[in-house]
Amino acid sequence: MLMKYRLFTPGPTSVPEATLLQLAKPVTHHRTTEFRKLFAELQTLLQYVFQTKNTVYTITGSGTAAFEAAFTSTIAPGSKVLNVTNGKFAERWAAYGKAFGMDVKELKLPYGEPATAEQIDTELKAGGFAAVTLVHSETSTATVADLAAIAKVVRKHGDVLLIVDGITSIGALPFKMDEWGVDIAITGSQKSLMLPPGLGYVSLSPRAEAAMEKAKLQNFYFDLKKYKKSIADSDTPFTPANTLIEAQLTSLRMIQQETIEGVWKRTAGVAAAFRAGMKALGFEMFSKSPADSVTAVRYLDGITDKDFRGTLKNQHNIHVAGGQGTMEGQIFRVNHMGYSDIYDCLAVVAAIEHTLKKLGKPVQFGAGVGAAQKVLSELF
Amino acid sequence: MLMKYRLFTPGPTSVPEATLLQLAKPVTHHRTTEFRKLFAELQTLLQYVFQTKNTVYTITGSGTAAFEAAFTSTIAPGSKVLNVTNGKFAERWAAYGKAFGMDVKELKLPYGEPATAEQIDTELKAGGFAAVTLVHSETSTATVADLAAIAKVVRKHGDVLLIVDGITSIGALPFKMDEWGVDIAITGSQKSLMLPPGLGYVSLSPRAEAAMEKAKLQNFYFDLKKYKKSIADSDTPFTPANTLIEAQLTSLRMIQQETIEGVWKRTAGVAAAFRAGMKALGFEMFSKSPADSVTAVRYLDGITDKDFRGTLKNQHNIHVAGGQGTMEGQIFRVNHMGYSDIYDCLAVVAAIEHTLKKLGKPVQFGAGVGAAQKVLSELF
Repeated sequence: MLMKYRLFTPGPTSVPEATLLQLAKPVTHHRTTEFRKLFAELQTLLQYVFQTKNTVYTITGSGTAAFEAAFTSTIAPGSKVLNVTNGKFAERWAAYGKAFGMDVKELKLPYGEPATAEQIDTELKAGGFAAVTLVHSETSTATVADLAAIAKVVRKHGDVLLIVDGITSIGALPFKMDEWGVDIAITGSQKSLMLPPGLGYVSLSPRAEAAMEKAKLQNFYFDLKKYKKSIADSDTPFTPANTLIEAQLTSLRMIQQETIEGVWKRTAGVAAAFRAGMKALGFEMFSKSPADSVTAVRYLDGITDKDFRGTLKNQHNIHVAGGQGTMEGQIFRVNHMGYSDIYDCLAVVAAIEHTLKKLGKPVQFGAGVGAAQKVLSELF
Repeated sequence: MLMKYRLFTPGPTSVPEATLLQLAKPVTHHRTTEFRKLFAELQTLLQYVFQTKNTVYTITGSGTAAFEAAFTSTIAPGSKVLNVTNGKFAERWAAYGKAFGMDVKELKLPYGEPATAEQIDTELKAGGFAAVTLVHSETSTATVADLAAIAKVVRKHGDVLLIVDGITSIGALPFKMDEWGVDIAITGSQKSLMLPPGLGYVSLSPRAEAAMEKAKLQNFYFDLKKYKKSIADSDTPFTPANTLIEAQLTSLRMIQQETIEGVWKRTAGVAAAFRAGMKALGFEMFSKSPADSVTAVRYLDGITDKDFRGTLKNQHNIHVAGGQGTMEGQIFRVNHMGYSDIYDCLAVVAAIEHTLKKLGKPVQFGAGVGAAQKVLSELF
């Protein structure tokens, strides 16, 4: 039976057909007037998505590459850095700081629990911090932090840089770089921005740009000063993934057309509907502060990850993610970012109803999709 | 009048239609059995192209990113490095070593002149070198070095690592990593390997792998130990540009079908034909040791870069490259790597005949293409 392939991992995510077709166009060279014009448009559209007047730099690499560019370009060796550690990606940034010889203080929290502004305020009162590294939306636990409130308290502590991993938040959740006072914002192309993996984006506030002029680690490919010099001429210091950049425009123009507020609203609505559907089927969410970009759902007793995700994949051609590290087997994760509309969401809820039945669990057909539908109706 | 777009810059280069169509396919996730199988095939095909039994690591980033991964993963801080400096990319690697605090000794040669094995032997006799960094085919001057002979003398000097930028040689010119004794070989996806930019490849000899275990600079994204650990499971430590990887297979299978020796022969034949065509039209080559991957041609007196390349672009829809740095206005450069056959080469020679006429130079129509044809006939 025909079953369309549906990708619901929290990155890579589904890419619009128009963007894919752009990727199939003949390759051109990037040191041309035409490309510079496109690169300038990319800048404008990224600034819109980041909600910033700051420059957004494009790195050919993953989101981790963008993080490294931000970090090595702005933080002096040996600096004291506060890292909120409450998920796999948060752990990566802690390991990262340590690999580069930083004095990393960790605010350790259980998986699924976000840091509060008060907790960060308390930590920073110890003084001497150069930066706070925070994951806005932690993909591994599907947990969102109250970034607006956290930024507010960080701003009370002078020139401490607030470095935000927005890899699964920017372009999905409300994110206002300038209004909130975020110093460094990072994302990747393969999440909310509806492109395959290969590009990372990073934006620096004037405070972070000033830090870049003063102190940095040894770097070259990740030296944002080089990118800053090149971008004045709408260019890049190293060969960029130019076909991805051109295709990125196609996806970003779609965001512009829907409006960023429209994207936020849709994503929130779809996530709320999905959670309602899951609850109606007896599931609980893993996170104490569920993100709207991705949902982590605890397995019901007696259901294995292998059977559940295997059935979704093999019988329904739907690919959702499992848990990472110690969360493996405990949860499954479903993406709501990017090229994903309300009926895509409904298909996953429906497929989960069929999967529960197949795995021998009692299920009232329509309970999940009905609950989701009720929430979705609020979008109209 | 219909004029097909023809890309003849020495990277990005033209990409096969089948590969472009692969890039237009729906995006899938990379942590799957299916992707691991493809990634394992990529490994085998890259080893074939590199002519090596060593592992080839895939970095999401440009060729410079691959160079940085090799360099920071194998060279101890403060090491003495011999860099052959005779072109723009060679200059980049010298700047690179300095940026990372290396003691960089430069063998400086005029643009267009390759280092000889004897010169390198003489330099290395001073002793204490950890590595030699060498551009095999220097794209900016279209100059090839005799890598086989150079590797032979480097091997006489004990554990000195031979780090080779093969960005415009591997997959175009004869390159035998194992047979010649190259320690670190680097290339990018957007040259001979017939893919858009976005992937860099690096392979380490057992000697280089041993160096990696002992001494390295601070790194994270470029830490090849992480890649080594992941590749045991046909995986990557960070989100890879997975759609590019899948498309890379399409292009590499074409190389496998033509055979690597067939690719080398075609590329050499096309380059020789192009040079013959240019000489018949009165041009001289810029390099004293012309590479077969890209040709740099000196402008005839009274012809400006703007008029010449402008006419090719605007009237013939053919994009060739100009000179970089001090070579700007002195030369134009034409690619022979990758998805480029004998009739593509002939079209450029023909278009140059028309361009000379248009720019008021005397031209005997057919002189260039005739000379090229004569050389091409040797391919059959």
